[in-house]
Amino acid sequence: MLERAVVLTSGGMDSATTLAIAGSAGCECYALSFDYGQRHSVELTAARLISERLGAKEWKLISFDLGEFGGSALTDLNIPVPVQASPGIPITYVPARNTVFLSFALGWAEVLSADYIYIGVNAVDYSGYPDCRPEYIDAFEKMAGLATKSAVEGNPVKVVAPLIDLTKREIIRTGLELGVDYSMTVSCYQPDDEGCACGLCDSCRIRMNGFQSLGVEDPTRYMQGRPETD
Amino acid sequence: MLERAVVLTSGGMDSATTLAIAGSAGCECYALSFDYGQRHSVELTAARLISERLGAKEWKLISFDLGEFGGSALTDLNIPVPVQASPGIPITYVPARNTVFLSFALGWAEVLSADYIYIGVNAVDYSGYPDCRPEYIDAFEKMAGLATKSAVEGNPVKVVAPLIDLTKREIIRTGLELGVDYSMTVSCYQPDDEGCACGLCDSCRIRMNGFQSLGVEDPTRYMQGRPETD
Repeated sequence: MLERAVVLTSGGMDSATTLAIAGSAGCECYALSFDYGQRHSVELTAARLISERLGAKEWKLISFDLGEFGGSALTDLNIPVPVQASPGIPITYVPARNTVFLSFALGWAEVLSADYIYIGVNAVDYSGYPDCRPEYIDAFEKMAGLATKSAVEGNPVKVVAPLIDLTKREIIRTGLELGVDYSMTVSCYQPDDEGCACGLCDSCRIRMNGFQSLGVEDPTRYMQGRPETD
Repeated sequence: MLERAVVLTSGGMDSATTLAIAGSAGCECYALSFDYGQRHSVELTAARLISERLGAKEWKLISFDLGEFGGSALTDLNIPVPVQASPGIPITYVPARNTVFLSFALGWAEVLSADYIYIGVNAVDYSGYPDCRPEYIDAFEKMAGLATKSAVEGNPVKVVAPLIDLTKREIIRTGLELGVDYSMTVSCYQPDDEGCACGLCDSCRIRMNGFQSLGVEDPTRYMQGRPETD
């Protein structure tokens, strides 16, 4: 039987690359996305299309409202998305987001008897999010190894973060080699309804610099033409 | 400033007792409940009332559908709730449920700058659920200590499970001492729309035996009169 993987799929570049990596490793992939009250829900359309195009066996969307708790520019319309980098953990950090996402993935993985959960976190360009660090991923895997019926029965799920040590440049190169069509992905924190990017937020800047450093054209459509890179 | 606690509140006896314990420890309590597609959503009405009655500062309900994943008698109407105990982990186990619940609690705790998450899990009468064991709670707390901005800044949240070593009898005695009105709580896995209990499922049997061993009358209303205890 094929090994199975639940792959967290946001509609962005990193998770698209992660899905391609899981597939190329021989896994039957189950893509999982979340409508959590984010500003940029146009990414969910992208997530579904990317999952289909990259051959996921199934795509599932779980909905809930993390905005209920407030505290992040990504879910609270009263907090503006910053347009320049600032020191420390940015206001676009969503409290416990990856923990919530991985927990749902753990539930689905258990029902599927999946061997792996893949997550596209990255510690190089991670913008200071604490739940993108290797020690966090390790701790989640340890907890998961005690949480489920499968784990108790000797089959704990492995949490794989294949991008964790890669630069954006390396991520893009890997994805291009695996045939990822990055024109389908949405990176911007505040895209318009058609998925055009602002070109100003952290996430846009990191993406643009990645493509530029590789000397490859970024297929993203920007709202007001292509901005200057750093 | 009062210490703050997010308290997972299901509408059942254990979480009501836990909320009373957190309050008596001097915490300002924020009660959190979930509509996760469970059969027994009448417990949510109970959760709200209990939270008000026990003086919670706020009650929040988060909705999502764990039934999307299937695999449990509590969320899948095609799987019957068993009416007698069986060995091993029962079919009423919901994959990764406590992990999902604790993850949302972690998000709210971070926004509130709460010091504690209280959860009413119990390892004595825990019916074989892996995510009710002390080692699981410890692992979740360790993971949480790496997951959040607050933790990175030196204020990790503590996960408190005050019932974990108590028998049902001790839980009921503690709650009665703290003034918990157990007539408001719903334990049954398949209550009717008015909150009357079946008297047959694991959860009903554990509750009945707890009251009986204490020699206290159980205020639960049963659908077909009070059944015999074990």
